[in-house]
Amino acid sequence: MPERLNQIGEREIINRLKRFMPKGQIEDDTAEINPFNKNILINSDVLVENVHFSEETTSAEDVGWRAVATNLSDLAASGVEQILGITVGLISPSSTTWDWVEDVYTGMEKALDKFGGNILGGDCSSGQQKVIAITAIGTVGPLRLHRSNAREGDYLVTSGPHGLSRLGLELLLSKDTSRDSFIPDQLKQKAIQAHQRPEPPIKALRILKNCKPKNISWRAAGTDSSDGLIDAIQNICDSSNCQAVLDANNLPKDHEWPNGSTWDNWCMNGGEDFELVLSLPPSWAKALLLALPSSRLIGVIKSGQPKVSWNHSKDLINVNDIENKHF
Amino acid sequence: MPERLNQIGEREIINRLKRFMPKGQIEDDTAEINPFNKNILINSDVLVENVHFSEETTSAEDVGWRAVATNLSDLAASGVEQILGITVGLISPSSTTWDWVEDVYTGMEKALDKFGGNILGGDCSSGQQKVIAITAIGTVGPLRLHRSNAREGDYLVTSGPHGLSRLGLELLLSKDTSRDSFIPDQLKQKAIQAHQRPEPPIKALRILKNCKPKNISWRAAGTDSSDGLIDAIQNICDSSNCQAVLDANNLPKDHEWPNGSTWDNWCMNGGEDFELVLSLPPSWAKALLLALPSSRLIGVIKSGQPKVSWNHSKDLINVNDIENKHF
Repeated sequence: MPERLNQIGEREIINRLKRFMPKGQIEDDTAEINPFNKNILINSDVLVENVHFSEETTSAEDVGWRAVATNLSDLAASGVEQILGITVGLISPSSTTWDWVEDVYTGMEKALDKFGGNILGGDCSSGQQKVIAITAIGTVGPLRLHRSNAREGDYLVTSGPHGLSRLGLELLLSKDTSRDSFIPDQLKQKAIQAHQRPEPPIKALRILKNCKPKNISWRAAGTDSSDGLIDAIQNICDSSNCQAVLDANNLPKDHEWPNGSTWDNWCMNGGEDFELVLSLPPSWAKALLLALPSSRLIGVIKSGQPKVSWNHSKDLINVNDIENKHF
Repeated sequence: MPERLNQIGEREIINRLKRFMPKGQIEDDTAEINPFNKNILINSDVLVENVHFSEETTSAEDVGWRAVATNLSDLAASGVEQILGITVGLISPSSTTWDWVEDVYTGMEKALDKFGGNILGGDCSSGQQKVIAITAIGTVGPLRLHRSNAREGDYLVTSGPHGLSRLGLELLLSKDTSRDSFIPDQLKQKAIQAHQRPEPPIKALRILKNCKPKNISWRAAGTDSSDGLIDAIQNICDSSNCQAVLDANNLPKDHEWPNGSTWDNWCMNGGEDFELVLSLPPSWAKALLLALPSSRLIGVIKSGQPKVSWNHSKDLINVNDIENKHF
C-alpha cells in the first residue's frame, strides 16, 4: 500500500523533506541567504494541477523539474548572475502518496543541480488540488534585462526555436499515433523532451553576457517566451512603447519543423518554450547570432504605438486567444 | 452584477494589480531588491481556503492581512531588521469576483503599511480552491534568532498572552451567543481582533533588541507561536536538544481569561497567536520583562533529552493532537 500524507502528518512530512535542503536551514521557518553585497532578483510562480500540468502528460518528477525551470527562466530573462535558491509551497490532497511528494522534490533537486541554487525552505498544506508555488531568488550583475529597455533600431533575437513544447504536449495527449507518422522521430523526441524537461535559458544568458561588444553599454530588453513568442514580443512593445516588425520568412522553427498554419501558430503562440526574447543593439545582436548557434534574428524594433506587425503580407496572429489561458 | 475573473482575463487582472506595487516593478516578471549589503531572510507560507481560513469567519481583506501577518511573524521570529517586501501567488476559481481579489490585496497593503515592506510582484492563476502563497523577505541585523540557540539556564519568555485567536474563532463560529455571556465584552473584542487582524510581533522584536544588556552577546533562541505555544516550545527543545520546564501557575493568559481546562488548552495549543517565544540569558529576559509589559516569564531551560514538562503536577498537554492540523 502506498503511504499517504494523512497517514504521515505535517511534522513528519517536514522532517522527511529536510534531506532536500542545506543542513541547518530548515531548523527555522525562515532561511538566511548571503547575496554577496549585490541586489537580488525575486520571482514567484504558481503551478496548478489541470491548469499548468496534468498527470496524463507530466510525471511527479517532471512537475518538480518544470516548476523550477519556469521560475529560473524568469530570473534568466531578467539577467540573473547567480541563482541563490528557491522556496517551495506545496499543496496536495491528504490522500496524495508520499512517493508523489518525494518525486516532485527529486525533480526540483535535479533541475537545481543542473542550473544552480538550493531548496531554501517552504511550507506545505493539504488542499483539494495539487499546487506548487515557487519563489526563486538570485543576484543581479551588470546586465539587467527589462521588458521596457527596447529602442528604435534594435534587432529582435530569440535564443532558440519555438513550438517544441506545444508539439510535445500534442504528442503526449495524442492517442492516434498514426496521424503523427509524418513527423521525424528526432523532432518528436526533442518536442517531448522540451515539454517534460524544459530548460531555462541560463546558458544562452551567459553567452549573451560574454559576447557584448566592449564599446556599448549593457542596455538590452529581454523577457522569456513562457507564454508564447508573440506574447513576449507584444510585452516588450507595450513596456518599451515601440513597434516590432517581424520577418515572416524567418520564424524561429526547428530545422525539421513542418510547414502549415497550425505549425506556424504553435511556433508563434504555443508557449512554454522558455527561450530568451531580446531586443539588442545591432552589433550585440550580430555577436550573439554568431556565438549562439540556436539563436535567430526574428525582426527589428521601430518607433510608434505598441504593435507587432510583419514585413510582408502574412496575417498578424491574433494574440487575444492566449490572453485568458490561466483563467 | 459583480465582475468575475473569467470575464476580465489574466492580462487585465495583472494590469489592475499594478496599482498595489511600486512603480516600474511589475514591468518584468521578477522584482529587483536592494538588501543594503546585508544578508537576507526569506520565508514562504501558503494559506488554503477551508484549511487556514474560511469565508464564514474571515473577510477577503482579513485574509490578505492575515497572510501578510503570518509571513512577517516568521521573519520577526528570525530577528528581521528591515522588511523588504512580499511576493504573492494568488489562486482562485475563475468565478471569483474581482472585488474579492481587490479586497485581499487591500488587506495585504494595509498590513504592509503598518509593519513595513511592499508588494514586489507575484503570479495568479485559476484553481478549484482559493490559495494565497506568500514569500516575504527582509534583512538580517546583529540579532539572528534560531530555534536551535537555547542553552541550559535560559529563561523562557513570550511576548504576549496566548489563546485569544482561538477564542476569537470560537466566538465567530458560535451561533449560541448566550453561551458566551459570561465572557467580558472587552475580552471578546480583543479575541475577535486577534483572530481577524493578528499582529506580527515586530514591536516586541524591536524592544527585545533595544533592551539587550551590553555585556552579553546576541545569542538568543526564538520562534513564533503560530502553531501554538506548546508546539513552539517543543520546537525549541527539539532544535536545541534541551528541556523546557514550564511554570503551570504562570500560563501567558489575558488578565480577563477565565479558568478551566478548555481555556488552559486554548492558551497552550490554540495557535495563530503570532507572539515571540524566546529562550534568553536571564539578564536579557529580565530586561525584556521590564521593557515589554505584555511579556511573560513562562519557564526555564534545562539540559536533557528534548521534553516539555511542568514544575508541578499539572498534566503535560499532549502535543500530538495538533501535529496533523494541516493534513
